[in-house]
Amino acid sequence: MNEIIEITQTPSWPFGEASRGKLVAEMMQQSGFRDVTIDGIGNVIGVRPGRNRKLPALIVAAHLDTVFPQGTDVTVKRAGTRLMAPGIGDDSRGLATLLVLARAMDKAGIQTERDILFVGNVGEEGPGDLRGVRHLFENDARAKTATGFISIDSSGSGGIVTRGVGSNRYHIVFSGPGGHSYDKFGIVNPMVPLAKTVVGLYGIAVPSEPKVTYSASIAGGGTSVNTIPPQVFVDVDMRSTSPEEVARVDRELRAIAQHAVDEENAARSTERGKVSVDFQVIGMRPAGQTDETKGLAAIAVGAAEEFGYQSRFIAVSTDANVAMSLGIPAITIGSGGRGGAEHSPDEWIDVEIDESVRGLKVDLATVVSAANVTN
Amino acid sequence: MNEIIEITQTPSWPFGEASRGKLVAEMMQQSGFRDVTIDGIGNVIGVRPGRNRKLPALIVAAHLDTVFPQGTDVTVKRAGTRLMAPGIGDDSRGLATLLVLARAMDKAGIQTERDILFVGNVGEEGPGDLRGVRHLFENDARAKTATGFISIDSSGSGGIVTRGVGSNRYHIVFSGPGGHSYDKFGIVNPMVPLAKTVVGLYGIAVPSEPKVTYSASIAGGGTSVNTIPPQVFVDVDMRSTSPEEVARVDRELRAIAQHAVDEENAARSTERGKVSVDFQVIGMRPAGQTDETKGLAAIAVGAAEEFGYQSRFIAVSTDANVAMSLGIPAITIGSGGRGGAEHSPDEWIDVEIDESVRGLKVDLATVVSAANVTN
Repeated sequence: MNEIIEITQTPSWPFGEASRGKLVAEMMQQSGFRDVTIDGIGNVIGVRPGRNRKLPALIVAAHLDTVFPQGTDVTVKRAGTRLMAPGIGDDSRGLATLLVLARAMDKAGIQTERDILFVGNVGEEGPGDLRGVRHLFENDARAKTATGFISIDSSGSGGIVTRGVGSNRYHIVFSGPGGHSYDKFGIVNPMVPLAKTVVGLYGIAVPSEPKVTYSASIAGGGTSVNTIPPQVFVDVDMRSTSPEEVARVDRELRAIAQHAVDEENAARSTERGKVSVDFQVIGMRPAGQTDETKGLAAIAVGAAEEFGYQSRFIAVSTDANVAMSLGIPAITIGSGGRGGAEHSPDEWIDVEIDESVRGLKVDLATVVSAANVTN
Repeated sequence: MNEIIEITQTPSWPFGEASRGKLVAEMMQQSGFRDVTIDGIGNVIGVRPGRNRKLPALIVAAHLDTVFPQGTDVTVKRAGTRLMAPGIGDDSRGLATLLVLARAMDKAGIQTERDILFVGNVGEEGPGDLRGVRHLFENDARAKTATGFISIDSSGSGGIVTRGVGSNRYHIVFSGPGGHSYDKFGIVNPMVPLAKTVVGLYGIAVPSEPKVTYSASIAGGGTSVNTIPPQVFVDVDMRSTSPEEVARVDRELRAIAQHAVDEENAARSTERGKVSVDFQVIGMRPAGQTDETKGLAAIAVGAAEEFGYQSRFIAVSTDANVAMSLGIPAITIGSGGRGGAEHSPDEWIDVEIDESVRGLKVDLATVVSAANVTN
């Protein structure tokens, strides 16, 4: 618990995870991890060697970043067994769980078949765009050949993320010549293809299974009410557990936008210039799925139920997306104990001992079983 | 010229015209105007009595406000006969012209048939929305019955504003329940009726004569890329010299927006709330025209040509709009002399004596003739 508090009170924001990373690296060293390193992007990696070091390793990760910006008051407040602070559950408790699991295995004299790579990774939340785990799988030889990936994220037990919701997020910029609204009336206006693109997006039919969603979320641009805008934008989010569906909506949207631009250049004067469109990537989270009938998912279900939790499969976007998209079995599970209000300043966890230990046992059983599978 | 400099160096911004108003009132008093008053909205009014004080008066106005915000450096720089400073031509020179005209008439012993109301008015530029002259015609008995209205605005001679371009400007806000882009997919999104409104606006056919224009100029709203926005807006400008045409486009746009809102509430889930639209007025400038074949316009043409200027009729938006819309003959003319770069920090005027005096003679002839018409 002291570790949770110390981690939480070391601020860590998107692209500002270095201090917390250093702290977690020190804690890993003190907890007896081997080969503790901080990689090029800021991920902290510690190894717990298995019996057969030639087997592909299991990765167990928790994320260093929070959604809260630099300067947020991260002082932990306590009321009974309840601790409150931004990021305390998402994902300070997860990071502390990495340490607790390793020490518990040492104490119980458990040696697994495979190496376990414990990772405190950067960039899970929004703007981070999963860059920490992405970097890991692109650059770390041990990750490239890993047998599986388990991320421990937020409180609770029983929920098992087996479907990674992928998303393509764009800042779509429409540009044109711009000009005085009265004098230059009749020239192309980038607001028109923007509007047609939004109307077209909301005309795209999507199935309910696999779930596919889209949203025109933010609009902006223009200089004054009496100026034809030189530039306007709309930010769009599209998501699905199916990579094919995200790709299809993406393709259709681009075609709609290009068609709208072409129509505008044909409908109004281009004597001062044409309108054009540019899709700028805000985020690209790959979609993926893990087999729910065997392997990691089955192990996690068994562990949860062994300790009396009802298990359920969940579809969201977590660090596990990256592994799933690469075909590596991956799940995300809770760090145990109760908690809530993640992403809000009122975020809390309950460290009541029985419930917390029961949750840790689920994670321990899951990790140890997964690291012992050798077939 | 010293008056132009002193007026210019007394900052006056939209809704911050009081200091310059006080200065102009003092200058009017020193120049021998009668009954100098500052009305409830900040207009400075001085009278030059005519022979028959029962005749409706002629109004001659120049505006106190500039487009430049509080804090702008308004120090006048000089290079030869060229003076440079923000607002020096638009409309410090016009204000000084009011004083020069009255003194010239005194010096030449000219008494007009009608009273002339000289007015330094507030609120001509953008956000002022013509509120000074509007207030004058709504509250001042002498204005309500005036025979005509001449505003002196910016440098130059020969250009005569006879058509007042009217405009309706709206901040159109579309609201809805908002929600998470993935979890709440399927609920109404206010971005859709906004987009349909823009597409609909650009489908409205307009004649080239009378000229009618519209512009979707600024867009905004939304909270994050993965949130269905609770509120978005688009700022729209519509203009014409024909009040009927502005009113028609306005009516059609409101119908389009309401239809788009109804469609959205029918097309997607309203379980968390409906979308709605609110037209917030940014500006309302009435359109109007003055007969170009007789009266004030003919007088101004004659005066310009008498002193060798080629006259031309102009359609823009000035303080004269208000009088025109009330059926009172109104024109806007230049204060004479060369000048340029209005609304820019590089604004300049040339006070070269021959050209400046020739321009003042045009204005003097116009004002005196207009104040002598008794039929």
